[in-house]
Amino acid sequence: MMVLYGYWRSSAAYRVRIALNFKGLEYESRSVNLVTGEQTTPDFLRLNPGAAVPALVLNNDTVLTQSLAIIDWLDTTYPQPCLVPECPTDAARVRAAAMVIACDIHPLNNLTVLGRLRDMGQDEEARRLWMCHWMTKGLHAFQALLPTDETFCFSNAPNLADTCLIPQLFNAHRWGCDLSAFKRLTEIEARCLDRQDFANARPEHQTDALRETV
Amino acid sequence: MMVLYGYWRSSAAYRVRIALNFKGLEYESRSVNLVTGEQTTPDFLRLNPGAAVPALVLNNDTVLTQSLAIIDWLDTTYPQPCLVPECPTDAARVRAAAMVIACDIHPLNNLTVLGRLRDMGQDEEARRLWMCHWMTKGLHAFQALLPTDETFCFSNAPNLADTCLIPQLFNAHRWGCDLSAFKRLTEIEARCLDRQDFANARPEHQTDALRETV
Repeated sequence: MMVLYGYWRSSAAYRVRIALNFKGLEYESRSVNLVTGEQTTPDFLRLNPGAAVPALVLNNDTVLTQSLAIIDWLDTTYPQPCLVPECPTDAARVRAAAMVIACDIHPLNNLTVLGRLRDMGQDEEARRLWMCHWMTKGLHAFQALLPTDETFCFSNAPNLADTCLIPQLFNAHRWGCDLSAFKRLTEIEARCLDRQDFANARPEHQTDALRETV
Repeated sequence: MMVLYGYWRSSAAYRVRIALNFKGLEYESRSVNLVTGEQTTPDFLRLNPGAAVPALVLNNDTVLTQSLAIIDWLDTTYPQPCLVPECPTDAARVRAAAMVIACDIHPLNNLTVLGRLRDMGQDEEARRLWMCHWMTKGLHAFQALLPTDETFCFSNAPNLADTCLIPQLFNAHRWGCDLSAFKRLTEIEARCLDRQDFANARPEHQTDALRETV
């Protein structure tokens, strides 16, 4: 069985959980506690020298890293239901929206970035403003790329864009960002979280979350 | 003819120039001056609401954004020579390395991020240390993902990983980062820049660079 190394609050790991559930794939979940630094232990660094989750270990022991690269592999290997549309132009549009989140928002919201800002003397409120600044800017760009008349981001089924959006909105709620300008996005969020595949991937439903928050 | 909206110093636009040249595709280059804020003019926002370069306008007026999404489209539409290997596992490895740069380094090195840090009271030296911190960390992770015995990043020809690496190293030189730990990477850089496709894509060879630096 595939093994997913993740952490309940990592939004990159959350994306991969959604993709695995969306495709109905079974996997074993192993927790890497990013707060206590388990990602920098020698054992984990042998698995992923990038010291980050997610890492997906395949049945033949191949290790895949980087959430979007993992999702592309899943989509090629288990094509139905698809996460990236087959038409190249539609695929490029969906990928671009996903990358607004994966490249323009999420890297700036990372735990390591927050740690660095703290070390640079930025207090908690400055860090909260930093988080919300990039989320608000990025979510505006994301929303502008979507058609306005679809049930999910791009069509009547979720795809890669929704897979990136829902974990980013989890982060936005967590940091208290004002989402009143993003009604289209929070409506999509409600529809996604009504589905079993997205709901089962939610951070608060993961074993390590239950352990930490008891 | 395809039109590429870019800026000479944008490393994301540099990636797309490399990909277009690598595939021998002709395109018209239009400059968007990110320093004077041309990316936020109403005309450009109609093209890309994300207010960023690159944006590639296709012959049928379709606008593609986000460098990696554009490169995926180019690779699907003009498959030879390929930038992403056909084997799904090899593709996942190459994509993961590319994303270490595109997701873990470059977003933190962006001009808008530097502006935000300045507004937060961080002086020039603090900003330089910020740049080099993320580059050094990310380039270590990138280098650890590469095989050690290939001419380019993953094989005897450049691919998506090299396409992301060379613009990132341009940035590293520009910011004075110590690259002594990355001999494998600077060797690859020298080989890439010996090729006409990479050399023609270099920032300093673009029309807007020549105009600005005269």
